This record gives sequence, structure tokens and C-alpha cells, in this order.
Amino acid sequence: MSLRQEIRKGEVAIDAPPATDAGLVFIGRIRTPWTSRLDCPRQGRRDGPTCRIELFEPWTPGLAGIEAFETLEVLYWLDRSRRDLVRQSPADDGSTRGVFALRSPVRPNPIGTSLVTLLGVEGATMLVRGLDCLDGTPLIDLKPDRCAFTPLAPPQPGDFQVGD
Amino acid sequence: MSLRQEIRKGEVAIDAPPATDAGLVFIGRIRTPWTSRLDCPRQGRRDGPTCRIELFEPWTPGLAGIEAFETLEVLYWLDRSRRDLVRQSPADDGSTRGVFALRSPVRPNPIGTSLVTLLGVEGATMLVRGLDCLDGTPLIDLKPDRCAFTPLAPPQPGDFQVGD
Repeated sequence: MSLRQEIRKGEVAIDAPPATDAGLVFIGRIRTPWTSRLDCPRQGRRDGPTCRIELFEPWTPGLAGIEAFETLEVLYWLDRSRRDLVRQSPADDGSTRGVFALRSPVRPNPIGTSLVTLLGVEGATMLVRGLDCLDGTPLIDLKPDRCAFTPLAPPQPGDFQVGD
Repeated sequence: MSLRQEIRKGEVAIDAPPATDAGLVFIGRIRTPWTSRLDCPRQGRRDGPTCRIELFEPWTPGLAGIEAFETLEVLYWLDRSRRDLVRQSPADDGSTRGVFALRSPVRPNPIGTSLVTLLGVEGATMLVRGLDCLDGTPLIDLKPDRCAFTPLAPPQPGDFQVGD
């Protein structure tokens, strides 16, 4: 199974610069029911199947307090995606749109983001609903949803700065 | 100016594995009014100051169609953050919480995410409100907000799959 390698009518591939500006560490693995990209949901749904997020050592102490949040933001690495298509044709009908106007897995930095419902925490594993990625997808970050999170640090001047 | 390097009372640093599992390319630069982390908002506000997202070549054809979206998700690299604090004390009061229960810039993979209001596009520059990052922060991705985006690809089996 792999994500598509073909270029469709109207799509534009560029000669991508090397991806060496910063490095990622995979901090866990995501377990879902989907082993082919042709079966995955195009977007996760909050009433979808239960999936598992397995965190690797040495990161597990970072979970302390996570059970307080019903909604988490999950960042993962779409490791089977090409990165060079700046215009894409999702419907393969000749019409194209820029990659930044799409949530396609094919992107310069193939990072997926989902909002998930946290159903439970079992040791280093979180049970969640709302994902759309392939089984085995590498995890790169977990955060509380911004709407549920109130900063704990003392206020700073920028907090009060509004635009013209 | 740098993000903090000290370890506060109760915080736990681990010996982080090398960040060599995947590589990022910086696709642009973010311009904000904030040059010190002590001035930044702790979270962006949608009525905050206008900031500029400058996209680099060869990625600019990827902007085609972006002006249709009022809200964008922005991913950026918090290049001045340490990555090894699994328990942190945002208030520096001795109480700590796991990194995955915080939206701190200090994380194993220091990627910030914001939802911003798109005010306009001028060539390869987007004018937006809602950011909270330092001036000069590297850009790694832009996507339409998931709530405003309807997939263009044909339906797939996973789209209809719900949990028990």
C-alpha cells in the first residue's frame, strides 16, 4: 500500500528543496482500522471508530494531566506522501487547486492534524475517536485543544494587544 | 532573545533521542510585532494585530484558491525552543504538568498551530490575525480550517464508518 505516485492531468510538481531545515522525532504510533489509503476517511469524524495512540518512551511522563481534556489536537507524519505537488486535482477531473487551499496528505511538509475525542488513557495508550490516518502512522505531537486550554503562565503584554 | 533554557522547580528533562526520523523544509517566514518571548501573546487572538505570512519559492503556486477561506490553520516551527522537558511548570510555582497536557512551545517536536483570519493575499504574502509567535518564525504549513473545508476527492468507505 502506498499513497499515489502518479501525476494527474493539470497537476504541477516542483523541484522541491531538500527537507533538511529541521528534524522530527517520532514519539509514538497511531493504530487505526485502515490499511489502505483507499479505505481511509477523507476527514476524521468524532463518531468514528475507536483508534489507539501509543506513546513511546521516554515521552510517557508527558501524559500527566492529559485526562482532563476531552478534545486533543493530534499531529502525525504522513510518511507515505509525496511532497512536491503544488497544484493538485483531488477529483482527478482536470480542475486543480493549490496545495495550501487543500487538506490533502500530499504537501511540502506532510503533517496531518486532527481534533479527537479522548475516550480513555491506559498506560501509554490513548483511546480516541476522530482520526483519518493509516494504521501505523507516526505520531509527532499531542496538545489540548486550544478552545479548552487556558494558559497557566503569567499574563504577558501581547495577551492584551488588539489590531487597528 | 531566546526561549528559556533554565529548568524550573519540579520540571523533568529527559535524554531526548536524536530528531532524525523525518526532515522539514521551511516554506516561508512569519512576520509579527513580537521580538521577545516575554512580549508574545500566550495564545493568538482573532482580533489581534495584523501579521504577515511570507511564502518562499518554489511554493507560491500552492496558494491558488486560498483566498476562498476565511480561516486558515497555520503550522510553524518554534525554532528557539528546547525539546526535552516532559513535565513543565508554566507558572514556575512548583506545580507541574505533562507536556502533552500543555500548549507550551517547549515540546519534543516544537510545532505551533494557530487558527487565523485571512484578511488578504498580496502576491506571496498573506495578511492574517490570530498568531502568537515571534517575528521571523519559520513557516511549515498552511491549510484551510477543517470546519470550512469539504473534501473534493470522491467518497471512500471510511467516510461512512462509525464506532460502536
